Amino acid sequence: MAERRLRLGVAGLGRAASSMLPSLAAHPHVDIVAAADQLPLARARFEADFGGRTWESAEALAGDPGIDAIYVATPHQCHVSDVVAAAAHGKHVLVEKPMALSVEECAAMTDAARASGIALVVGHTHAFDPVVRTMRDVIASGELGALRMIVNVAYTDFLYRPRRPEELDSARGGGIMYNQVPHQIEIVRALDGGPLRSVRAASGVWDRNRPTEGAMTALLEFASGVAASLTYSGYDHFDSDELAFWIAESGADKSPAHGAARRALGARSAGDEARMKAESAFAGRGVRLAETPAHQPHFGMLIASCERGDLRPSADGVLVYGDDGVREIPLPRGRTFPNKDGVIDELYDAVVRGIAPLHDAAWGTATVAAALALVQSARERREIMLEGADVR
Amino acid sequence: MAERRLRLGVAGLGRAASSMLPSLAAHPHVDIVAAADQLPLARARFEADFGGRTWESAEALAGDPGIDAIYVATPHQCHVSDVVAAAAHGKHVLVEKPMALSVEECAAMTDAARASGIALVVGHTHAFDPVVRTMRDVIASGELGALRMIVNVAYTDFLYRPRRPEELDSARGGGIMYNQVPHQIEIVRALDGGPLRSVRAASGVWDRNRPTEGAMTALLEFASGVAASLTYSGYDHFDSDELAFWIAESGADKSPAHGAARRALGARSAGDEARMKAESAFAGRGVRLAETPAHQPHFGMLIASCERGDLRPSADGVLVYGDDGVREIPLPRGRTFPNKDGVIDELYDAVVRGIAPLHDAAWGTATVAAALALVQSARERREIMLEGADVR
Repeated sequence: MAERRLRLGVAGLGRAASSMLPSLAAHPHVDIVAAADQLPLARARFEADFGGRTWESAEALAGDPGIDAIYVATPHQCHVSDVVAAAAHGKHVLVEKPMALSVEECAAMTDAARASGIALVVGHTHAFDPVVRTMRDVIASGELGALRMIVNVAYTDFLYRPRRPEELDSARGGGIMYNQVPHQIEIVRALDGGPLRSVRAASGVWDRNRPTEGAMTALLEFASGVAASLTYSGYDHFDSDELAFWIAESGADKSPAHGAARRALGARSAGDEARMKAESAFAGRGVRLAETPAHQPHFGMLIASCERGDLRPSADGVLVYGDDGVREIPLPRGRTFPNKDGVIDELYDAVVRGIAPLHDAAWGTATVAAALALVQSARERREIMLEGADVR
Repeated sequence: MAERRLRLGVAGLGRAASSMLPSLAAHPHVDIVAAADQLPLARARFEADFGGRTWESAEALAGDPGIDAIYVATPHQCHVSDVVAAAAHGKHVLVEKPMALSVEECAAMTDAARASGIALVVGHTHAFDPVVRTMRDVIASGELGALRMIVNVAYTDFLYRPRRPEELDSARGGGIMYNQVPHQIEIVRALDGGPLRSVRAASGVWDRNRPTEGAMTALLEFASGVAASLTYSGYDHFDSDELAFWIAESGADKSPAHGAARRALGARSAGDEARMKAESAFAGRGVRLAETPAHQPHFGMLIASCERGDLRPSADGVLVYGDDGVREIPLPRGRTFPNKDGVIDELYDAVVRGIAPLHDAAWGTATVAAALALVQSARERREIMLEGADVR
């Protein structure tokens, strides 16, 4: 018997959508049938590439009777209204991280989803990466004893990728705290599996021309006692992919190019930079559906320590450093590039099979709460307690 | 005119002395003329190798009229009495880290040194490494703007090196908190240059057979606002020298050997293990004075981020990742192996040239205070404020 197909609309055809469309297009049970974007060029590109209907707004897309679910990839500040609109029309939702910019917005989205009975899945983050899932499985197996400590260190060129003005404004969800640190928060949450107890963070705005947080270091402690050390710098100096076998976040092969993003960006007006971003994203280039990655996607250098062994992603799997030496768990290459199958599987399983998603509204809310606590901790230079913030 | 020579006695001929003797012996203005140890085998070895006088106790050595200074390398818990005895006899002191096991002991040592007018130098730690000093110089030059963030990550086999029983007892200064974390504390203190404001740590005792702290992660914030993330595991699983060009802490070339220390130790009685330690240290093997290291000594993976660039030790110098790419500052090889010249130079300069040491009693006390605050933070699962703890 044929599996039921999921008819999907894409709200927002920007960089997030560019990155998700290969996995959506390759999914065996998903049909991409509609999209919304305010840019005519993006809509024309979608019609040419996917042959579906287009709308000028996410709200209009929500009213499309020919879709079952909406992938909300609009700017962060639009997530709450776009998800509430989708729910009002009975459409299931996959919403990009961060779920929203406040716990109150998350609550509004959660309430709307609950009231209309739709599935609400939050992601993709690198917590969905096969290497992280495999590490989680090894931890859960008990082979290495209890998980005790996690380190994740990422140095990237994030701050010098082309941006729209709001992406450089922390108050509107710009900078690393809402866009990169959530990957780290979700990776360690996925590995521990329980609620956070407290966080202590320090962050920095080091480039006056890009006045949003570009670097951070934090110590997170879970209720379980597991401690996680997270460090991020997006200032395009050192590149932590050197510590991860010189493969890129996506799993692609990579050559050292320190400072290349800064040089490519150069000095240009905000308008020029926004155009540069649009041209390098879906509206300008569409998506390349045929690529496959050379290696596993990952996020920075990651080490999870259990009582009797350490776990670390390798280029093509997971390294297990046990009492008696090291072995590698090889992993199959993803179908697509980037590989974001995990989050789409969760949406499909929730809608069609009635399987509750792991990365549901409560999960996404807890990540937003943690990110906001890190922001608060850095601002107030003190530890912030989080007990009770995970509503799970 | 010939420089004045410093006549030195060595109190305690254990592993610390084994590691320091090459640098002491190679120093152009230091003569090793006496030593103290309770083990007859160690005294005999010293007499054979160095031809000097030997004593059964550090107190007896302190009374030797033929020495100007004492290198105190006795077990941690003996530091306070051995330094006070040296001061009472007007002998200058170089005392191993940790300076002592409490701030009160440090105060007693400081008072004794002040009362008798002797020089008191604390070290060696990896803060004296040429790579760290070079990073500090680049930071001080202002070339990269202000220092903002430091990460140090070390995964070693520390816990499975042969130990005496007290080295596995935290109450007597055993475990990583008093022996390895001080390296990390001093590296980041040397780079920032100012007092610490607060610390938050989590530590773990993961092997019941070696019931002392073997792993830790911490966030330290300096009064300057600089944040430092320190992580250490001595459980012989992952080896962070993989992230540091596969060179050992000493600068020697290294081959991966995950779990080798645990296998070599095996299951044996405490007495057998103490004997194994003695045999592998000075009493059993003496010191090899001719070796020179292939590369620079270092401690784990270290990245210091300034506003306009990151600094990182390379195998043979320091990498500067600036706005326009990466360059390397090459450093000369050390005269000796391990290379601990820096701390001996400080002692010599303090005694002979009247130059106040950087790593003086106040410096050593602040490191002990920081290590104790990390212990307290981990125990109480909360941030500990340190303002005022640096008496400088």
